[in-house]
Amino acid sequence: MKKTIQLNPIGAMSLLSQLEVDRLKKSTSSELYRLFRNCSLAVLNSGAHEDNYENIFSPYEDFEINLLRRERGVKIELVNPPALAFVDGKLIRGVHEHLFAVLRDLLHMGARYEAHLVDEAEPAHVTHMVFDMLRNAEAIKPAGDPNMVVCWGGHSIGETEYKYTKEVGYQLGLREMNVCTGCGPGAMKGPMKGATIGHAKQRYRHGRYLGVSEPSIIAAEPPNPIVNELVIMPDIEKRLEAFVRIAHAIVVFPGGVGTAEELLYLLGIMLHEQNKDQVIPLILTGPKEAEAYFNSIDQFVAETLGPEAQKLYSIIIDDPAEVARTIRDTQAEVTEYRKMKGDSYHFNWSLKIEPDFQAPFVPSHENMASLNLHYEQPKAQLAASLRRAFSGIVAGNVKAEGIKRIRQHGPFQINGNSELMVMLDDLLKSFVAQHRMKLPGSHYDPCYRVVK
Amino acid sequence: MKKTIQLNPIGAMSLLSQLEVDRLKKSTSSELYRLFRNCSLAVLNSGAHEDNYENIFSPYEDFEINLLRRERGVKIELVNPPALAFVDGKLIRGVHEHLFAVLRDLLHMGARYEAHLVDEAEPAHVTHMVFDMLRNAEAIKPAGDPNMVVCWGGHSIGETEYKYTKEVGYQLGLREMNVCTGCGPGAMKGPMKGATIGHAKQRYRHGRYLGVSEPSIIAAEPPNPIVNELVIMPDIEKRLEAFVRIAHAIVVFPGGVGTAEELLYLLGIMLHEQNKDQVIPLILTGPKEAEAYFNSIDQFVAETLGPEAQKLYSIIIDDPAEVARTIRDTQAEVTEYRKMKGDSYHFNWSLKIEPDFQAPFVPSHENMASLNLHYEQPKAQLAASLRRAFSGIVAGNVKAEGIKRIRQHGPFQINGNSELMVMLDDLLKSFVAQHRMKLPGSHYDPCYRVVK
Amino acid sequence: MKKTIQLNPIGAMSLLSQLEVDRLKKSTSSELYRLFRNCSLAVLNSGAHEDNYENIFSPYEDFEINLLRRERGVKIELVNPPALAFVDGKLIRGVHEHLFAVLRDLLHMGARYEAHLVDEAEPAHVTHMVFDMLRNAEAIKPAGDPNMVVCWGGHSIGETEYKYTKEVGYQLGLREMNVCTGCGPGAMKGPMKGATIGHAKQRYRHGRYLGVSEPSIIAAEPPNPIVNELVIMPDIEKRLEAFVRIAHAIVVFPGGVGTAEELLYLLGIMLHEQNKDQVIPLILTGPKEAEAYFNSIDQFVAETLGPEAQKLYSIIIDDPAEVARTIRDTQAEVTEYRKMKGDSYHFNWSLKIEPDFQAPFVPSHENMASLNLHYEQPKAQLAASLRRAFSGIVAGNVKAEGIKRIRQHGPFQINGNSELMVMLDDLLKSFVAQHRMKLPGSHYDPCYRVVK
Amino acid sequence: MKKTIQLNPIGAMSLLSQLEVDRLKKSTSSELYRLFRNCSLAVLNSGAHEDNYENIFSPYEDFEINLLRRERGVKIELVNPPALAFVDGKLIRGVHEHLFAVLRDLLHMGARYEAHLVDEAEPAHVTHMVFDMLRNAEAIKPAGDPNMVVCWGGHSIGETEYKYTKEVGYQLGLREMNVCTGCGPGAMKGPMKGATIGHAKQRYRHGRYLGVSEPSIIAAEPPNPIVNELVIMPDIEKRLEAFVRIAHAIVVFPGGVGTAEELLYLLGIMLHEQNKDQVIPLILTGPKEAEAYFNSIDQFVAETLGPEAQKLYSIIIDDPAEVARTIRDTQAEVTEYRKMKGDSYHFNWSLKIEPDFQAPFVPSHENMASLNLHYEQPKAQLAASLRRAFSGIVAGNVKAEGIKRIRQHGPFQINGNSELMVMLDDLLKSFVAQHRMKLPGSHYDPCYRVVK
Repeated sequence: MKKTIQLNPIGAMSLLSQLEVDRLKKSTSSELYRLFRNCSLAVLNSGAHEDNYENIFSPYEDFEINLLRRERGVKIELVNPPALAFVDGKLIRGVHEHLFAVLRDLLHMGARYEAHLVDEAEPAHVTHMVFDMLRNAEAIKPAGDPNMVVCWGGHSIGETEYKYTKEVGYQLGLREMNVCTGCGPGAMKGPMKGATIGHAKQRYRHGRYLGVSEPSIIAAEPPNPIVNELVIMPDIEKRLEAFVRIAHAIVVFPGGVGTAEELLYLLGIMLHEQNKDQVIPLILTGPKEAEAYFNSIDQFVAETLGPEAQKLYSIIIDDPAEVARTIRDTQAEVTEYRKMKGDSYHFNWSLKIEPDFQAPFVPSHENMASLNLHYEQPKAQLAASLRRAFSGIVAGNVKAEGIKRIRQHGPFQINGNSELMVMLDDLLKSFVAQHRMKLPGSHYDPCYRVVK
Repeated sequence: MKKTIQLNPIGAMSLLSQLEVDRLKKSTSSELYRLFRNCSLAVLNSGAHEDNYENIFSPYEDFEINLLRRERGVKIELVNPPALAFVDGKLIRGVHEHLFAVLRDLLHMGARYEAHLVDEAEPAHVTHMVFDMLRNAEAIKPAGDPNMVVCWGGHSIGETEYKYTKEVGYQLGLREMNVCTGCGPGAMKGPMKGATIGHAKQRYRHGRYLGVSEPSIIAAEPPNPIVNELVIMPDIEKRLEAFVRIAHAIVVFPGGVGTAEELLYLLGIMLHEQNKDQVIPLILTGPKEAEAYFNSIDQFVAETLGPEAQKLYSIIIDDPAEVARTIRDTQAEVTEYRKMKGDSYHFNWSLKIEPDFQAPFVPSHENMASLNLHYEQPKAQLAASLRRAFSGIVAGNVKAEGIKRIRQHGPFQINGNSELMVMLDDLLKSFVAQHRMKLPGSHYDPCYRVVK
Repeated sequence: MKKTIQLNPIGAMSLLSQLEVDRLKKSTSSELYRLFRNCSLAVLNSGAHEDNYENIFSPYEDFEINLLRRERGVKIELVNPPALAFVDGKLIRGVHEHLFAVLRDLLHMGARYEAHLVDEAEPAHVTHMVFDMLRNAEAIKPAGDPNMVVCWGGHSIGETEYKYTKEVGYQLGLREMNVCTGCGPGAMKGPMKGATIGHAKQRYRHGRYLGVSEPSIIAAEPPNPIVNELVIMPDIEKRLEAFVRIAHAIVVFPGGVGTAEELLYLLGIMLHEQNKDQVIPLILTGPKEAEAYFNSIDQFVAETLGPEAQKLYSIIIDDPAEVARTIRDTQAEVTEYRKMKGDSYHFNWSLKIEPDFQAPFVPSHENMASLNLHYEQPKAQLAASLRRAFSGIVAGNVKAEGIKRIRQHGPFQINGNSELMVMLDDLLKSFVAQHRMKLPGSHYDPCYRVVK
Repeated sequence: MKKTIQLNPIGAMSLLSQLEVDRLKKSTSSELYRLFRNCSLAVLNSGAHEDNYENIFSPYEDFEINLLRRERGVKIELVNPPALAFVDGKLIRGVHEHLFAVLRDLLHMGARYEAHLVDEAEPAHVTHMVFDMLRNAEAIKPAGDPNMVVCWGGHSIGETEYKYTKEVGYQLGLREMNVCTGCGPGAMKGPMKGATIGHAKQRYRHGRYLGVSEPSIIAAEPPNPIVNELVIMPDIEKRLEAFVRIAHAIVVFPGGVGTAEELLYLLGIMLHEQNKDQVIPLILTGPKEAEAYFNSIDQFVAETLGPEAQKLYSIIIDDPAEVARTIRDTQAEVTEYRKMKGDSYHFNWSLKIEPDFQAPFVPSHENMASLNLHYEQPKAQLAASLRRAFSGIVAGNVKAEGIKRIRQHGPFQINGNSELMVMLDDLLKSFVAQHRMKLPGSHYDPCYRVVK
């Protein structure tokens, strides 16, 4: 028997025109509808301890989502939704809002970018698109304080590391900083929970727990309901650009390939000549147990991107208050730089991002095999290539498209300079050994082979 | 010496992307910039007792408007603005908001419609465009009560009529109805002032004084600062469509050709078979002195569109409380109908509007001369043609483009069925005699000639 | 047949204890209940063009007011209320609020002052009482700007003067000043209506239209519904003290004996040595027609209190914008003085008020006859005595108690220095001639006789 | 060197009259000042893991607190405050608010009750006093939903029990229930932290974490900063009355003598004939490990107050969601009962409380020794006596006055029916064994001796 539930519209989504509703109604077979359904299903799985999209999706093959026009706006109808996000039969309000955020972002993507209003080859256009998605989601708040701390780190971390991320979030919250992560469990959830308590003690009413996702990752990293602003960016590259342009500081917790991708992305950009005066505080931090982890990351950066890249971050071990204090103390400098540049406090327009970092990377076996992983190139380009390598492995680990490719063609072949390959392989192996690739409980078969 | 003033951004306009700012910055020679400048100048003339665009614009040839990017958003810079809207050197906040409304609407028009996202020949697209402009302006408030009373009437009316419009506004305000007009003085200002006092007595915090204008009329009818929501629609036809789709009731005060255009537009639409169950309360009202005026309007409708059209309105003379009470009493029926149709409370999607009423009419001499003003056609089409005739005269009276045409080619020739022509001429003559064509103090030379 | 209506509680009044409700329920025969009923009846007569309390009260002898305890708080039940303040059978929200303000203030007076917590002979206690009544009514807003303009003037003024008071209010509103008056029609209503429009144009959301009344005057001067904060002070002297301690500027419009009382009260206080540095801008203003009126007031002050008193005010004729500008321009000085003194921005504690001005004056024939109206005393004491003389005439004109006394014993005898008596008589006669004593339409029999 | 810090006024405290400030300024030697200082010091120790008032107070003998009048209101000046509640030198906002709550409540107590406005022997007056303190603290919110869950339980509980209280709070928060406790650590803090996260997920904006304390216990149980409403009641009996009159449900977690006091108090009242229809859901709950604890409590109730008392509660072991669901499900009945009685949703006036439970009990050795602890009396009276016995032990354990008495005169002697004494002694011994008397880490010397 079909179980259906209707959800009242929230915010802007009360106001859809007939054309817009038709787009998502008629088009059950359409790509846009499929994305809408899948992202919604991911959002409804909020709280699941699962990063395998098939385990998440397969029990809900009869799940449907429909739009209904009503006198007060557009309602969402769920057919056979997962029970997870309901309390006594009522959908958690946070998840309810996330569903309308999905609707909002997919419609906006559809309307603007399917219409080819934007030239993806043109950096200014790509950046406009990133801005426009965030603006449409009201994720840029010109009246607010510049206080957004982007937190990166693994979805699969141990209890000690998880507690540590909560404590850092708490200390940030006490200092009235906000938190942005990529959604999902682990290091992406802990800082938000901690900040919630810190904000409550400070009576901080503008607590923002901003989750930035994209359609291919959201099933593996569903937003938890504390996320009070959810934005779905069109792809991973625009998601990364969103992170770095809205950040007033960045914290990196222990993590796996995804975290490595994020760190390499940022370091590669910051190495650009035009960004040498940019002020983006970057702190790598974890509990005592994570010290070795950060040493090996630091070593990897040293040997690939050199000391210039190492200078871009500091490592703080086992001192959450110090992390938060350091960030708070640098904020005057951050805003001072923006002001001096005539740049926005809330979107870092002046950060230079080369096409290398903007162009969507499709992790096909061919593309993975032909990555330029040699030293004879500028550091920034090497960073861009390494970023892509990690990005491909993320896809092979948890993204539907990537997993399919691995099933068909076997593991990606990654090759390049042999010393580099050894180092890379060691790093990846340590991620495997530390259970950072997939949530514990499942066996991990590497989706890659490093050709040494 | 240049006098400049900078205005802080308001609302959404804090958040423009570099692409958008460039559009209005670089393009001093562009059509979009010209519209932006002229609409802004009109808005700054708020309060001028003047409907001659040349008198309004000529003293301010050195007026400029620029956009400046700042860390909190985009500022507007005014160079040599008129002094009218300043109090002790500070711009009235209402006018300040209007300038950002102009910016918002022109950018939105530019972005969406220059990109040809919309097919103007397709009724669904035109209606989407009307909706989209209103939505972008946040003029549709799904959470609010359905209580918008559109008030039409002349910009040039006498003191007794003006007081009467204030009193009707007051009585509407006491009943917590809101007011929408076309901006400008006279019958478009009075109801808003009255409603402000009524709302204050009722502690009604959501008082809306919505002004809907369009670029070619705004100079002749600048919004007064009580207008707390200003929307600039792309053209007169979309402005008319906006009026009728957001109205929960319509009041017609005495007026001239513009008012006649509005009335004919509505009657023409309502005569459509598919609209026969539509509930749009329509009241023609004025003080004792206006009784004859409404009799002649009523007579004109009777003889052109017939008793079926007469049934669509009621005439109430000299009883403001009765007008307000009647409207309040019909509201349950209005919302009931929307609910039954599954239609929105705040935008009447189900009202059928034929292309005849949507297509922009360019009042050239040729078009005016070839209007089909004969009885041998459906009433609705006759209404559409009459609407265009009146629209053309409005253009010839007060719009820049129209006035230029009249100067070059002399008065429009209007011809058709001879009885109809006599009637039309009489009506127009009575408008002239009653000083409804132009503000008193100026001599009125008819811009038309009715060929009898 | 009894007509009853129940009103939902507003604000603090939702929360009465059983003891408090009993006080007003059981005690139909009590003085507190009688005051409550009569003030409520006055408030319900809002909008009546009437200053004769008997005409107001006599048609409503069967009016009752009851308190009902309900699960969400205490409701007020009205039995046979006047129809005046209802719109289509629903009480105007402003009046609804006023009824709960009456309840709040009478309960607070009762609880605090009947319990003899306060020693009326002790200036600090009286001032505490004034503060405590205003605080309990939330009429002191520490977070707000200091911008309260107290407007005094006649309840019975002509159309030209009334329009002028509206225009001054409008100009004050445009400058984001708030307005406090004594409630009632005429010069006490005009500035509030004007300020409402000015505030609307400036989008000023904190518009305050504060009415300060007292039980014996409220029937003659019922608050109009624009008053959005109503406070009932225990007696006329505490009402006057409230006016001067919350004022950041004072405007005096043309008026009669009440206005004269207010002016003399303020001048008397300001002449005190300890107040010589106090900054309280005081402007006497009216239209062209009022020039002679202010000349004679000025003359009277000159000859009684001397040039020192004249220096305390300026007279501005026929220039509303200049009045508002002058006030705005002095505000920096006003707050500077408070800051320097460590005094509150919103309650002028440092203003010295002698017991002479605080002690309630009972206008019996004996007290009126024995007023010390001679020159051989300090100016401030003469001002205090003149204040009492005017106060007595107000009572004889419009207050229930006073009118009864006059009926029983004939007019008050006022005597003193003969030159002074001539001058006083002339002033009073001019008030009579200009219809300032009572609303036009009634014959005025003087309630006093000046013994020359 | 003196370290001083000044705190801006919050809310109502901006508005103190000179009389009120003088009361607390001049009176350094006064009892009111001493209370104010000590409660403030307790509040500043928020977060200390300490329930020994001497350890809390002795390091801060040079701590002072002063009031300063400023143009925006009254500031609090702290001299040599403890560092605990500061983050990077700035006082946590929650604690800042608590200090002003202390000021507010002590002033209100002083003004109202020192003036002997209230007759403590009169039940209606005592209840009025309880209501009046809560009302003045704005802790009664007539517009809010009735959803206040009072949580009782020990300040000294183990990690498993603490986590359990958090989980119950989380489940209550997910169901949009609010939480009231007695302040302090352990079971009084856990539910609030949990509810904060639950509320965040539900976007519940009206989260209330109400702490009700009294001057003699606050040092031992300082409010943690999540408490966003703090009320200091005059004494323990009024605090207990406040708990039961504002509760819409009550949860009892494991605890020691204080918890036993609270439970006995409630059961004693509920046994009253007039309360037999009262609806106050009461749930005793804890993790698996606490099952034995609740069995012994249940046994004790069975043998002292009988099965009638047992029916008043249900015991739920290890099922937080079930606790929250049960409470949510009973709420309709709770409000239904209030409505039927015409009682307030937010203050249970109709609950009958006998003087036995209202009269302040002074735990002197004499009073403790003469408690009537025999079966030959009505159950309710026995409950009242047992309540006093537990209350006395709380005082002897953690209250300054009680500890002094024990030092001087040795342990309290408790005697009565010998079977009862055995049972009581066993219960108390189990509290000792389970470390529920004092925080772990300190040695516990019983302050009582049960004479068997």
